[in-house]
Amino acid sequence: MRAAGLASFAPAPVAALSASRPPNVILIYADDLGYGDLSCYGSPIPTPNLDRMAEEGVRFTQFCSTSSVCSPSRAALLTGRYPVRYGIPRVLVPSDREGLPESETTIAQMLKGAGYATMCIGKWHLGSRPEFSPMRRGFDRYYGLLFSNDMWPRSLYEDADVVESTARLNLLTRQYTDQAVKFINRNREKPFFLYMPHTAPHIPLEASPEFAGRSGQGIYGDVVAELDWSVGQVLQALKDAGLDENTLVMFSSDNGPWYQGSPGRLRGRKGSTYEGGMRVPFIARMPGRIPAGKVVDAFANTMDVLPTVAGLTGAARPAQTLDGVDIWALLAAEDNPPAREVFLYFHDEYLQCARSGDWKLHVARYSVPMFVPEPARGRKNLLLTRPELYNVLSDREEAYDRTERNPSVVASIRAGIDRVMATMPPGVQQTYKDTLATKTEDTPSGSLPAEKPPQP
Amino acid sequence: MRAAGLASFAPAPVAALSASRPPNVILIYADDLGYGDLSCYGSPIPTPNLDRMAEEGVRFTQFCSTSSVCSPSRAALLTGRYPVRYGIPRVLVPSDREGLPESETTIAQMLKGAGYATMCIGKWHLGSRPEFSPMRRGFDRYYGLLFSNDMWPRSLYEDADVVESTARLNLLTRQYTDQAVKFINRNREKPFFLYMPHTAPHIPLEASPEFAGRSGQGIYGDVVAELDWSVGQVLQALKDAGLDENTLVMFSSDNGPWYQGSPGRLRGRKGSTYEGGMRVPFIARMPGRIPAGKVVDAFANTMDVLPTVAGLTGAARPAQTLDGVDIWALLAAEDNPPAREVFLYFHDEYLQCARSGDWKLHVARYSVPMFVPEPARGRKNLLLTRPELYNVLSDREEAYDRTERNPSVVASIRAGIDRVMATMPPGVQQTYKDTLATKTEDTPSGSLPAEKPPQP
Repeated sequence: MRAAGLASFAPAPVAALSASRPPNVILIYADDLGYGDLSCYGSPIPTPNLDRMAEEGVRFTQFCSTSSVCSPSRAALLTGRYPVRYGIPRVLVPSDREGLPESETTIAQMLKGAGYATMCIGKWHLGSRPEFSPMRRGFDRYYGLLFSNDMWPRSLYEDADVVESTARLNLLTRQYTDQAVKFINRNREKPFFLYMPHTAPHIPLEASPEFAGRSGQGIYGDVVAELDWSVGQVLQALKDAGLDENTLVMFSSDNGPWYQGSPGRLRGRKGSTYEGGMRVPFIARMPGRIPAGKVVDAFANTMDVLPTVAGLTGAARPAQTLDGVDIWALLAAEDNPPAREVFLYFHDEYLQCARSGDWKLHVARYSVPMFVPEPARGRKNLLLTRPELYNVLSDREEAYDRTERNPSVVASIRAGIDRVMATMPPGVQQTYKDTLATKTEDTPSGSLPAEKPPQP
Repeated sequence: MRAAGLASFAPAPVAALSASRPPNVILIYADDLGYGDLSCYGSPIPTPNLDRMAEEGVRFTQFCSTSSVCSPSRAALLTGRYPVRYGIPRVLVPSDREGLPESETTIAQMLKGAGYATMCIGKWHLGSRPEFSPMRRGFDRYYGLLFSNDMWPRSLYEDADVVESTARLNLLTRQYTDQAVKFINRNREKPFFLYMPHTAPHIPLEASPEFAGRSGQGIYGDVVAELDWSVGQVLQALKDAGLDENTLVMFSSDNGPWYQGSPGRLRGRKGSTYEGGMRVPFIARMPGRIPAGKVVDAFANTMDVLPTVAGLTGAARPAQTLDGVDIWALLAAEDNPPAREVFLYFHDEYLQCARSGDWKLHVARYSVPMFVPEPARGRKNLLLTRPELYNVLSDREEAYDRTERNPSVVASIRAGIDRVMATMPPGVQQTYKDTLATKTEDTPSGSLPAEKPPQP
């Protein structure tokens, strides 16, 4: 009985506790924030609001984004499905005509169908043509940038209208926050879904005058500190509105850090299928429903958000096959983690790794030409001569391949890859077959093929 | 009085303590071993012999190679000078006609001039034409490979003769070790210099049957464990020969880890001027002269080895200006670290960073084309729109730029760069000027220029 926990919280806030009102959902999504960039994840940057949110909720240590770059990461988050299933494997740029296909159902569409008020505040990055607008993908309201803050034009939209032809970077976080607080206050009487994909801390980095120079960790730290302040404002607005206990608030990031920022001792950064490109902070808070101060070491990923929200709110799940699973048991820190299939790591449309539990198998790698053995030049994704198996819990840096003594783990993950790939569109399957075909040389002694060294 | 310490060791070994005999020097150099790949630096790989060597001597935490790739790293080690001074900025491949120029003096030449027996055992990688042979650069004897173990032909040499047309990778560490023990035993009565640049743990990775599958950390761990065994054999041979207290033994690596291996939570790997590409383990042992169990956090680098050896042995220093300094005071754990100029980090011939104390200033970055703003396409090294200052002691991942609050540090390092660059050959100075000229756009607000995002 999940609701039982509520009894221990008194007095009950004014507006929140109609048993018939489904809970609100707030999903805050940072841009290029690394796994190690919050104080509660080991950063020297002061993030007191997110730290407190973690103390009052659960904090995940093995939570992955579904892509190491912006657009596919957001697509997976909003649909619960691998972006390669519907053709969004790459970062979209303003000249692209693509966007999140209408065949996909977003969390916003799902909740709108259940009677929620919905709003997207921040960076969309899932298509700029009218048919891909957030307003067409389940959001009643929109406020933000259609692309990253390093892309042009950098217009600020309110719903379908441009309200600033060039957004002022040092004000955006504050503007987003104002909009979020207003949205919460407008919806005290109606269940709502607020999706808040921040522009920060993606480059270019700018903080407002109140935060510039204040974090003690340079401009990146200032920007993250302001992001943290924003989270605090949103949580305070919930409290002020009496909605604190009837709202699930989640915080995460779209991928690892880029130029600055910390992957938290993980290998790789944005753009890499090593953990530093994919693993991100994840914090969830819902007083009375989610216990306080738990740390969850079980694996989870962004595609789990949609099924979890569906389960919590009772909204009808999309018709499509979902790749994520309902992780409410993990949020509630119950002992029974959900059963799940292997998790696949794609780089563009190329499969590179797969994870099951604490084990991650690398099967292929995206290679710059100088690292590519002669027989395979011209292919961007190369099958590894030998797969590499890492225990990402004990070996954060994916430093020591453990295939030799764990053949059953390797076989099990390979079988999982085959099962999931069999459900993919033909083009994705063919790309994987092409990768398998790059194995042009076998070196039973364990040698890699001779290759030209990097220059350097 | 350094010699005073000897009095506390009794009984005196048989052969070692002629006051007139200068100390032996052994320099063991791993290939692509990361900063985090020894147990005493936090690795799960068992390295009991190197751990004991560190317990009996000093272990440095801020020791850098002078390059992030093989050939220039070895050139700097053996000459005490920046490789850009004499045209070895890159990895040499078998088709190259270049090598370490005869104008340079190696540690071996310096010590040979002081009457030492000298031998190089392992990977040379400083030129394959006869005039560049180790036998012409101060070594009486040679045993090893002229190139990396991933380059062809992989012939094993003994002096000037090929003794195996294709070296057997799984036997090399043992063969090197046998040669080293024999060399020590042959030179019980004469001061000697043994330079032992191992082939391990560079890819392809192979361990001997005694070590394969034994480390619990996969093939990379097995190879490192065998390397550790080799160090133990060398130290035991010294003890058996009664030379333990009259021999300075140093251990380090040429650069950060490549495919596998751990940079020890530092950012970057082989090929990068971030610390993970450059910082390496450094352990030195000389019972009675170097105190046991000290950890040194002061900065030092591979170019310091030659001046330190010169100081210890009394050998005449080369005529050329040295970039390294005598760090005996650090080895002896005295309180007065040597004065030194800023240390420059080059990527190829491009200056990218400079370090002074715990501060490291990044001024330029080697960019792959997709990251390069349009106005500067075609240049490989780009001046950063804003320099970045990292405290590499407190910020291992070079995550948070601290320029804003430390303008005097930035100015001081910039002045140091100018002083050192003024001593460089004209071509190196011009390359730096060309880099400065890549600053095509100024963004006083702190923005980076708009750029096309990675794909991905």
